Amino acid sequence: MNVGGVPLRPLAAAPGGDAVVVIDQRALPHRLQFATLASPQDVYTAIRDMWVRGAPLIGAVAAYGLALQARADAGDAALAAAVAHLQSARPTAVNLAWALQRLLRHLLALPASQRGDAAWQEAGAIAEEDVQVNAAIGRHGLPLLQAVAARRPGPVNVLTHCNAGWLATVDWGTATSPLYQAHAAGLPLHVWVDETRPRNQGASLTAWELAQAGVPHTLVADNAGGHLMQRGQVDIVIVGCDRVTARGDVCNKIGTYLKALAAQDNGVPFYVAMPTSTLDLALADGLRQIPIEERPAREVTHISGRDAAGTVVEVQLTAAGTPAANPAFDVTPARLVSGLITEHGVVAAEEGALRRLMEGQR
Amino acid sequence: MNVGGVPLRPLAAAPGGDAVVVIDQRALPHRLQFATLASPQDVYTAIRDMWVRGAPLIGAVAAYGLALQARADAGDAALAAAVAHLQSARPTAVNLAWALQRLLRHLLALPASQRGDAAWQEAGAIAEEDVQVNAAIGRHGLPLLQAVAARRPGPVNVLTHCNAGWLATVDWGTATSPLYQAHAAGLPLHVWVDETRPRNQGASLTAWELAQAGVPHTLVADNAGGHLMQRGQVDIVIVGCDRVTARGDVCNKIGTYLKALAAQDNGVPFYVAMPTSTLDLALADGLRQIPIEERPAREVTHISGRDAAGTVVEVQLTAAGTPAANPAFDVTPARLVSGLITEHGVVAAEEGALRRLMEGQR
Repeated sequence: MNVGGVPLRPLAAAPGGDAVVVIDQRALPHRLQFATLASPQDVYTAIRDMWVRGAPLIGAVAAYGLALQARADAGDAALAAAVAHLQSARPTAVNLAWALQRLLRHLLALPASQRGDAAWQEAGAIAEEDVQVNAAIGRHGLPLLQAVAARRPGPVNVLTHCNAGWLATVDWGTATSPLYQAHAAGLPLHVWVDETRPRNQGASLTAWELAQAGVPHTLVADNAGGHLMQRGQVDIVIVGCDRVTARGDVCNKIGTYLKALAAQDNGVPFYVAMPTSTLDLALADGLRQIPIEERPAREVTHISGRDAAGTVVEVQLTAAGTPAANPAFDVTPARLVSGLITEHGVVAAEEGALRRLMEGQR
Repeated sequence: MNVGGVPLRPLAAAPGGDAVVVIDQRALPHRLQFATLASPQDVYTAIRDMWVRGAPLIGAVAAYGLALQARADAGDAALAAAVAHLQSARPTAVNLAWALQRLLRHLLALPASQRGDAAWQEAGAIAEEDVQVNAAIGRHGLPLLQAVAARRPGPVNVLTHCNAGWLATVDWGTATSPLYQAHAAGLPLHVWVDETRPRNQGASLTAWELAQAGVPHTLVADNAGGHLMQRGQVDIVIVGCDRVTARGDVCNKIGTYLKALAAQDNGVPFYVAMPTSTLDLALADGLRQIPIEERPAREVTHISGRDAAGTVVEVQLTAAGTPAANPAFDVTPARLVSGLITEHGVVAAEEGALRRLMEGQR
């Protein structure tokens, strides 16, 4: 997508093939800042500390991390150790494991001498596929928005939670891809952006993205979504996901479940944009089986922003010593999901439909 | 309640009878700061700009505002104008109108010459009654917590939203009153405190209150409550309210509805602490009839906290120009409410029960 009219991606391979350049998303929306990752350890740190985040993006960045390892030492043991290390950076999103395992399988089938170049090329393929997958998600999601527009005049009101935008992927985003395509097609849109405490990915990233693309939007506290739905101000909810189980339970940013409940209570369709790399057919019960990352309490008690002088400073919101808990994801049961928007089409959040979809792609 | 071992209320009449002293709640949790309100206009500003907040407290403070008017000019027209002005400071909580109308009726029955002293005395009575009412809410709510404790070992896990604590009342709080009484009775408790964006009354006020009282608690983002309930980590939800309709619809801080939905979905009892001064029998349908205050966007886009040097600074969380909406309350339909904890006992959120309760008190 464009920033200030210039095409930009949150991840780019350095021309020399010895590093990747990423947008350091910690600095947004106050500053567009880049970071160069030149080793598997750099990549690990960037994922763990959320310089990059978003399930599809961390998969692609991790693949480059493994490629950097293959450049340095492509022995079986070194690759396996790098995979284990990179995979441990974040526990919840399955794309991380998916990308690393895919690349590892590819490399182990080759002689060690060829692995460095092959890894770089395959990491690039994973990144490019993500772009194509997300574009396809946009094409399949677009009719959902067109259907609302056909039903009544005025802009289609979409609510989204967290950032499942292009910053969370290699391009297009997942949940935002239908929005960007609808906007490009001239469909009138308005997006309610949940700020998404505690890390405020909605306020910092989604609102910034939508502003760059000229998509009308309004930021709201996470608390407001139910009220907006009660008042008929939301036509459709579209969110991303970090892991979806075989039966269609959706793990996504903490608070997603509350919006799904409100959508159901108010008859608002609740869709999840899901590249099939996010599907984990090995798991069934999302609530019991998906590991939920517990992040530092400081993300709840402190926050950064721009002071009157324009300097980004961190402030403490609470009294000294206030204890806080910070579960980063929750699980929305399949029964609350109207459908999953995948690169192969919209599919029911239901085991039979998901298995058929994946068998159809073999 | 005590602060640093010393009894303190958020509202105290000045000994001279010419002003009230309030805790300026904008400065908490970083600083305990007081403000002296010496005119109806001072009181209006303090309510409108939320130096004081909380449905019961703004009723009592407004009564003193009218008493200050009666000291200055107790003519019928002057009193009526002051009531209209004070009542316009905040639109949603009905206690504000309730206290002002009660005091006005009392004064209009007296000769103008007696109104100054009578108003001061009656405002004091309204404040003292609030203390007694909240103490009674605590007594009636306590058995709900004792019942959980009797069922299984370990602390009773309570979730609360916003601040319905002693800072929101003259003393005890509404939702917190059963908690403080349970804690005093030695019942093991743990309170999940929703931070309550955008004004963070949970993080700034409730967590501070609970810490002062030594009640174990953990701050969480508003997004986390559903997840905690899914995991069985919440035994009961208790919140306050700003207006309850005849059929039991509950208007409370934005986001309450989302917690009520999650409570229902997980079989967690959802109780509302309600002094009967918050009951508005003139309204039936909370969603259609209760005016919802829309507050400034800046409360969403900016926030204050303590920087590394200990100075309280305001920072901007968003990119310049990000539009935001800020509805301050939402309505939880009666069907999601397990019961209303009033000063007269726990009552069903149902019209017949509410009308019988009020008739029994005539």
